[in-house]
Amino acid sequence: MQGDEPVMDIAHLGHVELLTPKPEESLRFFRDVMGMTVSGEKGDSVFLRGWDDYERYSLQLTASHTSGLGHAAFRTRSAQALERRVAALRADGAEVTRTGENFGHGESFRFRDPDGHVFELYWETEWYAAPPDRRPALKNQAERYPARGVNVRRLDHFNCLAVDVRACREFFQRTLGLRCTERIELDSGEEAGMWLTSNNKSYDFAFTKEAHGVPGRFHHVTFALDSREAILQAADTFLEAGVFIETGPHKHAVQQTFFLYVWEPGGNRVEVAHAGARLILAPDWKTITWTEAERKKGQAWGLKTIESFHTHGTPPLPDSKR
Amino acid sequence: MQGDEPVMDIAHLGHVELLTPKPEESLRFFRDVMGMTVSGEKGDSVFLRGWDDYERYSLQLTASHTSGLGHAAFRTRSAQALERRVAALRADGAEVTRTGENFGHGESFRFRDPDGHVFELYWETEWYAAPPDRRPALKNQAERYPARGVNVRRLDHFNCLAVDVRACREFFQRTLGLRCTERIELDSGEEAGMWLTSNNKSYDFAFTKEAHGVPGRFHHVTFALDSREAILQAADTFLEAGVFIETGPHKHAVQQTFFLYVWEPGGNRVEVAHAGARLILAPDWKTITWTEAERKKGQAWGLKTIESFHTHGTPPLPDSKR
Amino acid sequence: MQGDEPVMDIAHLGHVELLTPKPEESLRFFRDVMGMTVSGEKGDSVFLRGWDDYERYSLQLTASHTSGLGHAAFRTRSAQALERRVAALRADGAEVTRTGENFGHGESFRFRDPDGHVFELYWETEWYAAPPDRRPALKNQAERYPARGVNVRRLDHFNCLAVDVRACREFFQRTLGLRCTERIELDSGEEAGMWLTSNNKSYDFAFTKEAHGVPGRFHHVTFALDSREAILQAADTFLEAGVFIETGPHKHAVQQTFFLYVWEPGGNRVEVAHAGARLILAPDWKTITWTEAERKKGQAWGLKTIESFHTHGTPPLPDSKR
Amino acid sequence: MQGDEPVMDIAHLGHVELLTPKPEESLRFFRDVMGMTVSGEKGDSVFLRGWDDYERYSLQLTASHTSGLGHAAFRTRSAQALERRVAALRADGAEVTRTGENFGHGESFRFRDPDGHVFELYWETEWYAAPPDRRPALKNQAERYPARGVNVRRLDHFNCLAVDVRACREFFQRTLGLRCTERIELDSGEEAGMWLTSNNKSYDFAFTKEAHGVPGRFHHVTFALDSREAILQAADTFLEAGVFIETGPHKHAVQQTFFLYVWEPGGNRVEVAHAGARLILAPDWKTITWTEAERKKGQAWGLKTIESFHTHGTPPLPDSKR
Repeated sequence: MQGDEPVMDIAHLGHVELLTPKPEESLRFFRDVMGMTVSGEKGDSVFLRGWDDYERYSLQLTASHTSGLGHAAFRTRSAQALERRVAALRADGAEVTRTGENFGHGESFRFRDPDGHVFELYWETEWYAAPPDRRPALKNQAERYPARGVNVRRLDHFNCLAVDVRACREFFQRTLGLRCTERIELDSGEEAGMWLTSNNKSYDFAFTKEAHGVPGRFHHVTFALDSREAILQAADTFLEAGVFIETGPHKHAVQQTFFLYVWEPGGNRVEVAHAGARLILAPDWKTITWTEAERKKGQAWGLKTIESFHTHGTPPLPDSKR
Repeated sequence: MQGDEPVMDIAHLGHVELLTPKPEESLRFFRDVMGMTVSGEKGDSVFLRGWDDYERYSLQLTASHTSGLGHAAFRTRSAQALERRVAALRADGAEVTRTGENFGHGESFRFRDPDGHVFELYWETEWYAAPPDRRPALKNQAERYPARGVNVRRLDHFNCLAVDVRACREFFQRTLGLRCTERIELDSGEEAGMWLTSNNKSYDFAFTKEAHGVPGRFHHVTFALDSREAILQAADTFLEAGVFIETGPHKHAVQQTFFLYVWEPGGNRVEVAHAGARLILAPDWKTITWTEAERKKGQAWGLKTIESFHTHGTPPLPDSKR
Repeated sequence: MQGDEPVMDIAHLGHVELLTPKPEESLRFFRDVMGMTVSGEKGDSVFLRGWDDYERYSLQLTASHTSGLGHAAFRTRSAQALERRVAALRADGAEVTRTGENFGHGESFRFRDPDGHVFELYWETEWYAAPPDRRPALKNQAERYPARGVNVRRLDHFNCLAVDVRACREFFQRTLGLRCTERIELDSGEEAGMWLTSNNKSYDFAFTKEAHGVPGRFHHVTFALDSREAILQAADTFLEAGVFIETGPHKHAVQQTFFLYVWEPGGNRVEVAHAGARLILAPDWKTITWTEAERKKGQAWGLKTIESFHTHGTPPLPDSKR
Repeated sequence: MQGDEPVMDIAHLGHVELLTPKPEESLRFFRDVMGMTVSGEKGDSVFLRGWDDYERYSLQLTASHTSGLGHAAFRTRSAQALERRVAALRADGAEVTRTGENFGHGESFRFRDPDGHVFELYWETEWYAAPPDRRPALKNQAERYPARGVNVRRLDHFNCLAVDVRACREFFQRTLGLRCTERIELDSGEEAGMWLTSNNKSYDFAFTKEAHGVPGRFHHVTFALDSREAILQAADTFLEAGVFIETGPHKHAVQQTFFLYVWEPGGNRVEVAHAGARLILAPDWKTITWTEAERKKGQAWGLKTIESFHTHGTPPLPDSKR
């Protein structure tokens, strides 16, 4: 049987840009509490990384009047793959802008998803070169294990809110060739959530329903820690540092990720997570669709989904929508 | 810069066939101690699986006069990918045999690597359908978590011995388009080990130097457990079950896998391992080459590599070589 | 400074007798899901144990018309210590009954606390003698690690409900010389909870407020697992076995125990817990008193205390009290 | 049956004084790598503590011309218990010296064991009062979780070398009433190791055979971490910090402690360890005696005991003994 071949042009999520109205406190959170390394500064942005991120940075923290997602950037699998995806986006009617000067990577191509979030694709990148005091003992590791704070290993994924989740999913499948591993479909037929991947991780990003009709909002960014025990330790670290813990640690039913959610000082939701040994190895993985009834059961071990999970996003809602 | 595009035709390692001269004891080991599920029997073979393996089986255990590797099988990313790889193998001069009748998957194509090990490629496969008593609580999981023995999650990788490691690596890179993430090069220039991957796992299989000049031998097969703590628990489970523990638990310097090696009753070496949150996300990962001096340092935290690691393989050496 | 010397006459909690109206299902739960060993049967009772319990059993499961606590038994530190505590109980006005024929231990002395729960003290005991198939590999261990279900290590503590928590605490301090490590005092001055220990564990049992004025009720019994990761694994095991998970895994603020609560088929609440490396080493530990406001903050990492935690106990409330 | 009652006069190990010829480097090791807090300085000593130690300090680090044990101090269970033990020591012929001025605790009584190591008993002590920036979020905790380096939780035990292990054991049993939980007896009848406890920990200290006939030497001091995973993380932290890892992580057969041994810059061996949920609850625990053959089997999971474990101690051997 000959079917369509999977598109493998997107290699992985490269970095996420977070906007923060409290840049100094946000920086202290990511550097001192999350244990990330500052690997650059430019304009209103500070660039940070986890010890296993191979590129120069995975988080761009940008001072702004408000919070939310600046943009999310994906590295393609080759120069040709980048060309193909830009062509596919344009063929689909997307407005794609080339930006030549970028911190830490080569030219990139920017576009908006149907909900207005800004995405970026690039191929050429700068590999992290550890300065002497950050050089690891083992040469197959990007940077020294920090033994500080939460010890973020690497960027894992992010989650946007969208008014029309289905339209966004179909856009990303059509233009980038991403695969939908899991989704939530309400009794009404509306799509309440979807998880997309470009590789063997079970998702690179998710979109969930924005309940107030406000486009372009952000739900959370997630960093991978190295074990579930590390996430339990992180809970203590957050507690001691006075960081607001929203929910967790617990295990999601969807995707089975072991999770812990906090809010960084700028208001953005941040997750630390661990997937165990879970990988999506099947190239033809069949999308798992969760029903409204199944979703109401809460998380894997019975924790009810916290109310703010459906309401809190960044930037904050306009007064008219609260 | 336009370079060659990575070949993405191989999706993942699908299953490994182990030969055992003690089929009943080996079966008890994999089922009762490793906690795997028997999902079929045919001829001299019993088929087993971990709870997260999506295909019907990941281990074929075949009664034989001796031990060692029967064959290792890889699933391609599509029907077209299978055709391309078979063509590439034939173009390279390999003798490729089509086998139409297979347990649990569609037609496959068999060939030998330069050292004589049997490999197989296939596309069509049978997804595991859990009987009622093995059905999981969460619909995004292949099978119920067993809570028995070592609780093998899924097949991870295997390791062959080879007389000419370099020739084998180049063969797999040339014909299957696999990527070499790490390798060992002795001061003499000889290649003593190489680790190849088709996806985001840091390796699907490794080849290390066979010291006695005997081709076609096998070093070990590895199953992924869900945490490092699970591997420590496994050590107790093996101890209580009277299974010979060869070395570990410890962390490899190469690939940084947390490991534990035992010998199953048939004589084959079996590893249980956990990679933490480590993935090879870079599509253009630069091969790490370890020197002879670095290798002599032992494992990550200083454990000396055990002597039998360089000598024990299956099948046993002929008397003339001991 | 010469103060009173601590009374060290009680050595540790020995066993708990649970009543169940569904004895066969309860037995399957404790044996197959909890991974405990059946070490005896007598009359309406089955006796079970964790692999690290040194005595013959730590749980007596007794068929009954209802659920709840049969009795809780403590081993004294010596024969003389037993005599002293019986004398102290009698001097305090308690009715103490000697029972000569006991399964697994010598003569015991029974009495009721002010809320009516039955307690028992004994000194002579039967050490568990593992049959060949349960003999451990290491001679400093009571029984083979089961590698089955939840792998209960040992009995840890239990929790009763009481109408007058303070009166119960003072009774146990006065008669048994137990130490109160933590307690909850409401704004009204009423005592809502107290945790008592006889040794270096931070508690052997707790009493919390019974909200309906019904005496003699039971809140839960707790078994120690060997790590927090084992408790996360237990959550999956319970989920797969269809066991009702009430709350957790999470970390208590009080005592900082990592916990998971389920209901066994007979209706009794059962906890699996892990204390990390926490011990009460100070012989003059100063009782920690939590206020009503502090208690309302929920558990250590912010989980709200589940409503049923304040209402569900065994036996069930009489109809008039619901 | 009325037997002797156990002596409960010693409450727990309070602190260990380590001598170091490299005081600044040793301090950096314990503070920055081990994650301990400096809680005082006096004369040639710096005082440090783990976040769960309830007393002001658990480690006294003293600049000296050489390495080794300064002294080990135990807190008694009461003022009367202190008097009783001093009397018992003197009755046994020990020379006991009273020292009135002590950092962090009241008057103490010093004496030497038969091998010449200095021990100290005290009752009155100073509870750690955390300054604002070290105050924990939970009031039942001594100090904030550091989230730095190895995150030492508390002092656990220490190990001395002795020429006559049996004489030392009998001395401590006779004078302090300690209980021997495990010991090693060689085929010759000589005692090669013994583990003593005053409480529910399986040991407060151990003595093992000094092979060169040099008295007063020290083998290691051990700090408890909160999980086995924390010890695996510590291995990485030591590796990155360039600390010499001697052996581990692995599980001891004796006492079943999960261990990792390193050498601090002053030359003293330091262990980080975790006991799981293991406690010695039986007041009449029967000493486990390991034979020479059992000891030769190595550690629990088969790791051979490293040669330096039998030779390296502090202070270094005199030239005449090497």
